Amino acid sequence: MIIDCHGHYTTAPAAHTSWREAQQAAYRSGAQPPRYPEITDDEIRETVEGNQLRLMAERGIDLTVFSPRASAMGHHFGDEAVSAAWARVSNDLIARVVELYPDKFIGVCQLPQSPGVPIANSVGELRRCVEELGFVGCNLNPDPSGGHWTSPPLTDESWYPFYEVMVELDVPAMVHVSAVTNPNFHATGSHYLNADTTAFMQFLQSDLFETFPSLRFVIPHGGGAVPYHWGRFRGLADMLGRPPLAGSVMSNVFFDTCVYHQPGINLLFDVVGVDNILFGSEMVGAVRGIDPQTGQYFDDTRRYVDALPLSGSSRQGVYEGNARRVYPRLDVALRQRSR
Amino acid sequence: MIIDCHGHYTTAPAAHTSWREAQQAAYRSGAQPPRYPEITDDEIRETVEGNQLRLMAERGIDLTVFSPRASAMGHHFGDEAVSAAWARVSNDLIARVVELYPDKFIGVCQLPQSPGVPIANSVGELRRCVEELGFVGCNLNPDPSGGHWTSPPLTDESWYPFYEVMVELDVPAMVHVSAVTNPNFHATGSHYLNADTTAFMQFLQSDLFETFPSLRFVIPHGGGAVPYHWGRFRGLADMLGRPPLAGSVMSNVFFDTCVYHQPGINLLFDVVGVDNILFGSEMVGAVRGIDPQTGQYFDDTRRYVDALPLSGSSRQGVYEGNARRVYPRLDVALRQRSR
Repeated sequence: MIIDCHGHYTTAPAAHTSWREAQQAAYRSGAQPPRYPEITDDEIRETVEGNQLRLMAERGIDLTVFSPRASAMGHHFGDEAVSAAWARVSNDLIARVVELYPDKFIGVCQLPQSPGVPIANSVGELRRCVEELGFVGCNLNPDPSGGHWTSPPLTDESWYPFYEVMVELDVPAMVHVSAVTNPNFHATGSHYLNADTTAFMQFLQSDLFETFPSLRFVIPHGGGAVPYHWGRFRGLADMLGRPPLAGSVMSNVFFDTCVYHQPGINLLFDVVGVDNILFGSEMVGAVRGIDPQTGQYFDDTRRYVDALPLSGSSRQGVYEGNARRVYPRLDVALRQRSR
Repeated sequence: MIIDCHGHYTTAPAAHTSWREAQQAAYRSGAQPPRYPEITDDEIRETVEGNQLRLMAERGIDLTVFSPRASAMGHHFGDEAVSAAWARVSNDLIARVVELYPDKFIGVCQLPQSPGVPIANSVGELRRCVEELGFVGCNLNPDPSGGHWTSPPLTDESWYPFYEVMVELDVPAMVHVSAVTNPNFHATGSHYLNADTTAFMQFLQSDLFETFPSLRFVIPHGGGAVPYHWGRFRGLADMLGRPPLAGSVMSNVFFDTCVYHQPGINLLFDVVGVDNILFGSEMVGAVRGIDPQTGQYFDDTRRYVDALPLSGSSRQGVYEGNARRVYPRLDVALRQRSR
């Protein structure tokens, strides 16, 4: 089977998105947000059947690890209560998609992060999503400030209370930032990639994975700039007196295949071991058009992976096995389904 | 000939570096900085002959476009007067290196940027360096805050007074950040690459080069994450209603070859036209070790470029012609020398 580890509900029903706008307006004016709207199953079906489900069928993707729209997480907006309410309804909506299409989607949650608020306060929502909604991971925002980078690095001990619960629940986090308020950055054009690179370098510099040997992170968008500069990172590890990447960081860090052209995918597989690569497309996401050079969708990453001369077992790992290993609760869920 | 467009004086004499420390200490204590020390020609010779000149000879590099150490620019430190004094002595030191080895180095200047200070205040030092010292370009820091990204994007009109003079003088800028005070970032491991990606996306989003058709930027470190995500950027240009990269941004933006492994260089040349690539190594720089996979220096980028199946004219362009075109004053200087 083919598992896409990186899909966001970018096509959520208008009522959901409108409620967020109303929530923001209410916060700005000091009022109470309106009640979250009723959204029918048909409305949900309509938003996924013509989008994710259609494209999954066209591209032969069996299952998408599905989470709320990353750019809409907007942790920088409002306060902790605003983020908590928004995370909760966004995750509940994912749970409904999964409930409607249990063979096609499995959930990953948004966290109620808020600038300056201890990450321990996100533990409750993580537990709720994993233990009650059956989610298999979370998206962790290293910069809830929205492009101002005011939080401590992911390797700082202030994050540990959350990591302890990730380890306890045996769920990975995808490192994923959200929208920006800093005009220097474009969310999907630079901030996402910068965050990926930044997180990798933080991990490279620290002993985090000695403290948490089973903690796992997926760095999306093909690892940001990292594979392209793989020699630089190997050389920096050497210069900084850190252990070689293979055997240290790369025991706990995984890249997805959200790289939207063949040469980039070729490079990724050329330098990063196949055990560290999870198939992903971020469809329907940042880049929705058709590449005039190929006549195919930029984000149809399966075509690029299919074009690689991989062995059967390597291909199976990238498409399925690695995801089952990095998301053990996904593996359990799939085994239960197949019974 | 082979021109390395990206070299910093990372081995500057200890007296120079010590003076900077004294200047910083003086600023912190509200005192006057000490007088800048006498540095002899022999001291300068000693710092380059065993380092840059030795490696240039070993690697067959004829000329290095040489600028002050990027990580030491430290624009975030102190105030405008501190940056002005530091830029001046740093540029003067580069001029002395060039004077000692006119066939081997040509100067590019550091600017006296300081957070919140108008970039117009850097025009005087640019003019001095170009018109009096014979420099051929400058390093422009898009984030003088040191990793807090508090300046407007490079495409904001507040930068225009500086661009007008760049155009008048016909000099390009290398987009180059410096050290960081934001603990999220490692200067050479993430901040440099993030800045490269950030600048490219800013250019992609704007009409800057319609306003300044002859303005030219070199984005170093192989363009940050951009070539690896070339499909993403092509797709984003399309989604944002921007013109195709070739024919718009790529008429004014150039990448160097500071990518420290063969697969990365292969990718760069696979996706970016050879007219947009300038040979560079950033030697002696961020990564100084030997790659155990090759037994060669990570930053010996000539080996990677030599290994490419380029035509003679393409190779000549990357090694020499493109640099002459992007730095016309370098071309003039070389022509005058050869007379």
